Amino acid sequence: MSQPTWSSLLRLPPGPVDLASLDTRATPGFDGKKADGQAALQELGPVISDLQERLFAAGRAGGDQRLLLVVQGMDTSGKGGTMRHAVGLMDPQGVSIRAFKAPTPTERRRGFLWRIRQALPEPGQIGVFDRSHYEDVLAARVRKLVRPAVVESRYEAINDFERELAGSGCVVVKVMLHISADEQRARLAERLDDPAKYWKYNPSDIDDRKLWPDFQRAYEIALERCNTDAAPWHVVPADRKWYRNLAVTQLLIEHLAPLKLDWPPADFDVEAEKARLAAS
Amino acid sequence: MSQPTWSSLLRLPPGPVDLASLDTRATPGFDGKKADGQAALQELGPVISDLQERLFAAGRAGGDQRLLLVVQGMDTSGKGGTMRHAVGLMDPQGVSIRAFKAPTPTERRRGFLWRIRQALPEPGQIGVFDRSHYEDVLAARVRKLVRPAVVESRYEAINDFERELAGSGCVVVKVMLHISADEQRARLAERLDDPAKYWKYNPSDIDDRKLWPDFQRAYEIALERCNTDAAPWHVVPADRKWYRNLAVTQLLIEHLAPLKLDWPPADFDVEAEKARLAAS
Repeated sequence: MSQPTWSSLLRLPPGPVDLASLDTRATPGFDGKKADGQAALQELGPVISDLQERLFAAGRAGGDQRLLLVVQGMDTSGKGGTMRHAVGLMDPQGVSIRAFKAPTPTERRRGFLWRIRQALPEPGQIGVFDRSHYEDVLAARVRKLVRPAVVESRYEAINDFERELAGSGCVVVKVMLHISADEQRARLAERLDDPAKYWKYNPSDIDDRKLWPDFQRAYEIALERCNTDAAPWHVVPADRKWYRNLAVTQLLIEHLAPLKLDWPPADFDVEAEKARLAAS
Repeated sequence: MSQPTWSSLLRLPPGPVDLASLDTRATPGFDGKKADGQAALQELGPVISDLQERLFAAGRAGGDQRLLLVVQGMDTSGKGGTMRHAVGLMDPQGVSIRAFKAPTPTERRRGFLWRIRQALPEPGQIGVFDRSHYEDVLAARVRKLVRPAVVESRYEAINDFERELAGSGCVVVKVMLHISADEQRARLAERLDDPAKYWKYNPSDIDDRKLWPDFQRAYEIALERCNTDAAPWHVVPADRKWYRNLAVTQLLIEHLAPLKLDWPPADFDVEAEKARLAAS
């Protein structure tokens, strides 16, 4: 009997989403404890590096395949830690990370997907979004940054966009890092307890906690309405940082492996080149 | 008696440069063998990560400091390996790598420093150039891509540019990875022996070997004429990959440490925020 894939365990089923019913401390797909999880992650380093290099090589050889990892989650859910510990396992030459802040006036004027399209990975590359176009249906909805009808129109625009992306050879992996409100409190407390972490803290973080239920609801709506076959959502329980890193890495591996990326064949005569080299 | 710094050992002295007199297999500053060097590199991981995070934090807090690492070297000198093994020790969120290929017609029209300026690191970031504006006095000179007078004018333009950069809070670390022609042959041979490396090989690599003396001479001229106090050159013996990784990492550490980057102080009342958080 084969093990279930991480994708199958973490992929959100179609239909209405109830985030409160999804345990933020669970570790689906992994039986061990923290130290086991950390060791397992390190063992995946060479695996994911090999796959990433094959993708990179294929890109150099003219292939159009690429991968986009979209990482969303509440403040302190570990988007940065995921970049460092999961994404950081790969060769930085093949990876481009883009963190999206509030859009500038120019970006706003050009439509919410404009800056997203600008930041898409090139063939052979792995692009990683720390926040994304989903903020335009999350923060935009909760903070009423645009009219409700505008938010409403965006879900389908996102689905169209992601379908186009997937159809053009870009594997889209969407991950929501799911933490509890209590875990967020503990993580903010750590920032206030350690002067080396003050810079990560902003008093508005507390104001935002009052909006926790609104944001959870906005996530549920976005997850439900943009959970397509072309670009499904994965919800990763993220109260345990080690599990989060392991799960995201496994999801990346499971999305790269099926591409069956062979090393590009030589487009030159290998033996002739050996002779030329020896004579050089 | 204190140990000499890596910077002092690897920094190019002022005056004419004779690359042939610089041993490509030497390991200045390090007595051990390969395994020792690899272990030493791993031990530096937390050191350089800490420094990089402090730089990042200072940038978030409004500081304008940043670092630009310029990596130059002949084909197969290990620019990519340096990205992976030295630069890759740091959090990818704080690092942006840019590889420069032959300029596009638009880039050419805008002047050789235009695309370089576009790619400079933001405050708090570490920017890494895999090739750089130096190609505009290296490849441009050897391949006669522009008139000699144009090449001549560029050395001073580069010095002015780098002086301006350094004056604006950007630490400039310039590294030439110095390999021998024999080592290059061995590395190209590896690519021809391993089907997983064919994609890295191009028959023009052999044609370029005929230009080896011309490129070495072009390097000597560029190294001599652009070896300023604001942005001195370092020549890293690079026949031994482990030494190259260790030396570049040490150079980065020695350029970050003197910035004495303290963690940004809280710009809020810590105790008041703790109370607000507890009540949230």
